[in-house]
Amino acid sequence: MASDADFMARALVLAERGRGFVTPNPRVGAVLVRDGAIVAEGWHKVFGGPHAEVECLHDAEKKGVDPAGATMYVTLEPCNHFGKTPPCSRTLLDARVGRVVVGCLDPNPVAGGGAELLRQGGVDVTVGVLALECRDAIADFVVWKTLGRPFVTVKLAMTLDGRIASRTGDSGWVSGEASRARVHAMRAACQAVLVGGGTLAADNPRLTHRLDGGPLARNPQPLAVAVTRRLPAPDGPLALVRDRPEQLVIFTGKAAAAGPAAAKLTALGVRVFGLPEKADGGLDLLPGLVRLRTEANVYTVLCEGGGGLAATLLAQGLLDELTVFYAPKVLGDDKAVAGFSGLAVPRMAGAAPFRFVATERVGEDLMVTARPAVPTDRATVDG
Amino acid sequence: MASDADFMARALVLAERGRGFVTPNPRVGAVLVRDGAIVAEGWHKVFGGPHAEVECLHDAEKKGVDPAGATMYVTLEPCNHFGKTPPCSRTLLDARVGRVVVGCLDPNPVAGGGAELLRQGGVDVTVGVLALECRDAIADFVVWKTLGRPFVTVKLAMTLDGRIASRTGDSGWVSGEASRARVHAMRAACQAVLVGGGTLAADNPRLTHRLDGGPLARNPQPLAVAVTRRLPAPDGPLALVRDRPEQLVIFTGKAAAAGPAAAKLTALGVRVFGLPEKADGGLDLLPGLVRLRTEANVYTVLCEGGGGLAATLLAQGLLDELTVFYAPKVLGDDKAVAGFSGLAVPRMAGAAPFRFVATERVGEDLMVTARPAVPTDRATVDG
Repeated sequence: MASDADFMARALVLAERGRGFVTPNPRVGAVLVRDGAIVAEGWHKVFGGPHAEVECLHDAEKKGVDPAGATMYVTLEPCNHFGKTPPCSRTLLDARVGRVVVGCLDPNPVAGGGAELLRQGGVDVTVGVLALECRDAIADFVVWKTLGRPFVTVKLAMTLDGRIASRTGDSGWVSGEASRARVHAMRAACQAVLVGGGTLAADNPRLTHRLDGGPLARNPQPLAVAVTRRLPAPDGPLALVRDRPEQLVIFTGKAAAAGPAAAKLTALGVRVFGLPEKADGGLDLLPGLVRLRTEANVYTVLCEGGGGLAATLLAQGLLDELTVFYAPKVLGDDKAVAGFSGLAVPRMAGAAPFRFVATERVGEDLMVTARPAVPTDRATVDG
Repeated sequence: MASDADFMARALVLAERGRGFVTPNPRVGAVLVRDGAIVAEGWHKVFGGPHAEVECLHDAEKKGVDPAGATMYVTLEPCNHFGKTPPCSRTLLDARVGRVVVGCLDPNPVAGGGAELLRQGGVDVTVGVLALECRDAIADFVVWKTLGRPFVTVKLAMTLDGRIASRTGDSGWVSGEASRARVHAMRAACQAVLVGGGTLAADNPRLTHRLDGGPLARNPQPLAVAVTRRLPAPDGPLALVRDRPEQLVIFTGKAAAAGPAAAKLTALGVRVFGLPEKADGGLDLLPGLVRLRTEANVYTVLCEGGGGLAATLLAQGLLDELTVFYAPKVLGDDKAVAGFSGLAVPRMAGAAPFRFVATERVGEDLMVTARPAVPTDRATVDG
């Protein structure tokens, strides 16, 4: 006998299909259930397109199923406002759905209130089934709505013992082919790839997605964002400056951003953001991220290292999600390059706490996704 | 429709139930299938007791099922010799089982040949279903039979970024309660716990299993084996010397083992093994492990660190299995203590290759089991 949680779990799987296509909308999934069986499914497929509930009702219509009296499971509270589409709460009332089960409430104050409207309309409403999982599924959306900055995922390819490169800086390759293909899909699903100055100099990366096919391959290339105190030479060997200057953003100190090198880079089309310093002397990354959001429509950022930048994001409370591709190998070398570096933590109890949200075998590697134990937005889970 | 692999997978689950009770026999599971359904199950439960096939036939008898013409799935080739029990191949012939599906052949030349005998007796025999998984399930047995030394599992509790302690050596606690309980079960299922001199000095451990209940709690305490150049003081503060001298074995250099401190420890009941040196100046651990096997009936060794000893076992080809409890936390500190340390590997391609064999969420942690990509016995997989 399938439970509310089983149906919500299916709606979550559907929600995930929107990844890379619906930003800056949340990923949402829905299923319609009658007599204990799923009779229709829907998910938010593309930004500006119908919401998951409407897709699900379309699916029911196509299948000749009458939604009247049936139960709809939806991962996020049905919206209650006229945005790009009419309010879903109204649509569900018109369809005479008998019961609505909601994963988590809408963190967006403008859109919220749908559950209440449905209740007033006589619909049986349950809120909070798989609430944590449903909140996790829209963690990016929560950050956009409550913090006004992009959602930041730190991705690392590490050996089992936590190294991203050998003592000589050699990192070709840590993870396997399947993991590297997955990273290209992650790049295609975000709007900016972030790297530190060390990675920039050592790898001279392009930071583009190179996918063989599939709908994500048609997504535009992400911006390349480099965090570096020393500006690259405008006529130097960096592929990003030479080939993609208009898609390159540099986070640097305020003084460097006001200097002649910055002016030359700007003339090439590079955007140079001068950032203030934190008390510890490091660059304050938050204003840079906010500018990416407001000036360049960047909603999701993928940080691909190195270890110093990953640790800085963590220390500044800007690491929303951590994705580690563990490769089944061991270096065993203290001088090898660590996946996180630069912090000084005297006690184990001072380690930054996370929680695991997913693990998946990707080729010969193990992909592990973790989130800060206390979410970066510090929001409580509804329901 | 269930396949041969499905039934063998069930037999593997049953085999695992023998962990900690059947050493030095292999863990083996069996199921009897008639008309596409499992009608009886068995596994090797205790050393000296009936083999899995016989347990399975007993189960069939108890359930009133006639094995004649049915199919038996067994993870390891039925034995063909009179050991503590009569040969299983003969028993299966007598029971007129119609077909026998074998996971992997017996690596023990004395016991092998069962599959051939069954064939000669007119039984339909298939060998090699889930061969790699079945071989993995008896990896310890393969090491005993082919290398004559104990099977060595290295267990580490690490942060996501590969650290087992903070820069001050503080390791309380890396992993959570559920993981620590699991480690006690691992101690109860082995005959010796191995630690390096650094761990000995820093943690002053007892290395006993402390289980609240269950059948493993009745297992004897494992020996404590410490690898250290400097012998501990016979009247010093070490709990192992004070409370468990007769269960303590020390691996040290040949000179130290012949000195007066060793004599005093020996008088307390401590066993001091003098080991030769490798070309790199490190202690050659293999002769020590072989002596544990031959002089102290040690078949399985659990190494609990530190990072230097783990790396030494790896470098000497003595690491048969790696179990990492990843705790969901990040230290991000280059000076923190690494899970493996002391090797010098200039290129990433020089990292020791492993393969993942299992992942499991244990409380809030992630338990990952990996094996060397090339098994330590270098045996090929049958079938």
